[in-house]
Amino acid sequence: MTGADAQPAGSRRRFIAAGGGIAGAALGANTAFAGGETSAPRATPDDAAEPFFGPHQNGIATPNPMQGSTYFAALDLAALDLAAADRKPVIAMLQAWTDAAERMTTGRIAAPPASPNRPFDNLDALGLGSARLTLTFGFGPDLFMLNGKDRFGLAGQRPAALVDLPVFPGDQLEKRHCGGAVSVQASADDPQVAFHAVRELVRLARDTAIVRWTQAGFSTAHRVNGTARNLMGFKDGTMNPSIRDAKTMNDHLWAGAEAPRWMQGGSYAVFRRIRIALEHWDQMTLGFQERTIGRHKLSGAPLGRAREFDPLDLNAQDKGGNPVIPATAHARLGAPEQNAGAQILRRAYNYSDGASFVAERWPPWKQVMEYDAGLMFVAYQKDPRLGFIPMFEKMSRLDALNQFTTHVGSAIFACPGGIRKGLYIGQALFET
Amino acid sequence: MTGADAQPAGSRRRFIAAGGGIAGAALGANTAFAGGETSAPRATPDDAAEPFFGPHQNGIATPNPMQGSTYFAALDLAALDLAAADRKPVIAMLQAWTDAAERMTTGRIAAPPASPNRPFDNLDALGLGSARLTLTFGFGPDLFMLNGKDRFGLAGQRPAALVDLPVFPGDQLEKRHCGGAVSVQASADDPQVAFHAVRELVRLARDTAIVRWTQAGFSTAHRVNGTARNLMGFKDGTMNPSIRDAKTMNDHLWAGAEAPRWMQGGSYAVFRRIRIALEHWDQMTLGFQERTIGRHKLSGAPLGRAREFDPLDLNAQDKGGNPVIPATAHARLGAPEQNAGAQILRRAYNYSDGASFVAERWPPWKQVMEYDAGLMFVAYQKDPRLGFIPMFEKMSRLDALNQFTTHVGSAIFACPGGIRKGLYIGQALFET
Repeated sequence: MTGADAQPAGSRRRFIAAGGGIAGAALGANTAFAGGETSAPRATPDDAAEPFFGPHQNGIATPNPMQGSTYFAALDLAALDLAAADRKPVIAMLQAWTDAAERMTTGRIAAPPASPNRPFDNLDALGLGSARLTLTFGFGPDLFMLNGKDRFGLAGQRPAALVDLPVFPGDQLEKRHCGGAVSVQASADDPQVAFHAVRELVRLARDTAIVRWTQAGFSTAHRVNGTARNLMGFKDGTMNPSIRDAKTMNDHLWAGAEAPRWMQGGSYAVFRRIRIALEHWDQMTLGFQERTIGRHKLSGAPLGRAREFDPLDLNAQDKGGNPVIPATAHARLGAPEQNAGAQILRRAYNYSDGASFVAERWPPWKQVMEYDAGLMFVAYQKDPRLGFIPMFEKMSRLDALNQFTTHVGSAIFACPGGIRKGLYIGQALFET
Repeated sequence: MTGADAQPAGSRRRFIAAGGGIAGAALGANTAFAGGETSAPRATPDDAAEPFFGPHQNGIATPNPMQGSTYFAALDLAALDLAAADRKPVIAMLQAWTDAAERMTTGRIAAPPASPNRPFDNLDALGLGSARLTLTFGFGPDLFMLNGKDRFGLAGQRPAALVDLPVFPGDQLEKRHCGGAVSVQASADDPQVAFHAVRELVRLARDTAIVRWTQAGFSTAHRVNGTARNLMGFKDGTMNPSIRDAKTMNDHLWAGAEAPRWMQGGSYAVFRRIRIALEHWDQMTLGFQERTIGRHKLSGAPLGRAREFDPLDLNAQDKGGNPVIPATAHARLGAPEQNAGAQILRRAYNYSDGASFVAERWPPWKQVMEYDAGLMFVAYQKDPRLGFIPMFEKMSRLDALNQFTTHVGSAIFACPGGIRKGLYIGQALFET
């Protein structure tokens, strides 16, 4: 890139005064560059904005239907790899992110304009409102220890529950979809609003953090009554615990007194990029698909039952004495009673990133382009050691669905407790 | 994959009768497997369905705002590479596609169920309505001639305007984003509806066609008043010709008497996957961005003017005698008066496929993960030799925007004229 830093004479005047300029129209001519806050509302009314501040971070147990789009980004603090325990730039980044998050979740630009010589909000979300934007931040294992180094003096604050995920049977993880020191998940009812939010945060983090991987996803939860269907055509999320049940949330979702203080009220996010062989799935018969899942496709009911929320009767047998819900059915293996009562809050999105090359091993052996699409699994929980890890340890060995799924990305993040106005994301971690 | 073809005894009975089965609930128990058409409406009212039949294909000059999502797929007729001139399976595929397209664009499943031993509509778009789905089909150069072979005896029907696109300066094309014998573009107001439509067509084409590449895109055109912004934050499509001006459409969009009969009323689609270095763009100042584009960012007006649709005054000079709209500005180079009056109908979407590895050459040299995002350029025109090709030949050399853009995918398709009820897609080509 070239020429970016060369500002011709008079550009400041033009920036403020020109008929097509940003300053006058977006912010009111008199407030431009005054340095103060500005309400700068977008054109679209925004009654539905999701509150950013609160006892828990937004985007985890957000009560409305899950937003239609998400953009998840994991970042490295790469520029700081060699520095010893300098928290200041990271704190400055988190402060800027907190301001920007509060602004963008209320439908405003990421930051007031500073000067014509500085980059500015990209405006690609102008006029789109908040679109119910939520921004959820997390800290990965690399923040606490990287290559054996406790860069920021935070190792003592690493929660026991923030484990390194084990290698599961069948994992085919690609580094470009794994790990990260810091995460942000932007969810909104418009994909451009979600992507815009992450881009602005990345822009504001320049010189401190760089993108490690990102993943865009979509859902129809906001467009249907009831449980949305995933790309396999089955209802996805039937077994989710109720976010309106405070006891269940405290038992299974929110970190409590067992966690370091900065994590209390927070939750642990497990991310898995699960590629699904949709071409093959689409050639399976309905009966085969239903036995694989353990549920009826149309209704979502357990096999042999009529309604989606009918209980799973894992002991039911057919006349021949065989289990109605097969031993390898996905629904059986994920049931709480098969997992010592464990529950996780799934906020899964679909992803569809075009097609890419796949070498299939068996049968028949072939090399083709296949959809690079599947499930962007994101689950929140109080403790992954009691949630995702034991559940998936078993499923990764036994689940009939494994014939169609390949886990190619993986990450874990500790998402701290809610943010109060005046404080910044992770302040209790960095200032203990 | 395993076990798919093994149907246990009684599966047909279960398929029809089970409480959670598809047949009864979706189609009315008495009509299941009767073989006839069924209306099988989805749950969502569908007053806004876009008509599939008409004088032109839908999805090209669709009068409502462009849909929010698109999914473009190019396919090879790979299984037929070695066969000589057997059009029958291709015709059967196009017949099945025509039926499925008419059904899905009116919010129905792709095909009535045939038997429990056959795969069935995946149902992932159930309850989502038509979502204004349009399906646009095209034929690429490979259909007419592949590796020097006129497989289907169609070479004589290849339109002169369906040229092989030249190599443009700066092209960094990747084979996995290029070419194809057959294309389908599904656009809808829901990404799952668009993807579902393509998946069903691919499923129905089994043994005849396989996916070569796909590209998902999104737009905010349906959510804003006026011209939508692309990922660079600028309004995109200001210069599009009016689809309500019949003369302009006949002059610039629709193939006429100069084309083979099967193409008359059709249009040529040029696809380019244009990766944009958004990280760098986001670090540029507003003034630099505006000089690159030649327009003001907020209003979309030409530099020096106040309103989006003010004419581009390419002769305007500032006090120093320099052009107000720089010689290398994107808007100047694309203006019709700079291109012998050429106009193309742009239906561009944004794409965002996560992040991928980029080795930057200059300056500074580095290897990082960057957004795999940018513009999914799709433009329709009467003749690419008078439209996209000369326009981009010049822009690829001079456009200041080239500092940020890299063309990594490319394809061209002849999209035949509109489809009348009772005929199938491309019938006039295959039956001449």
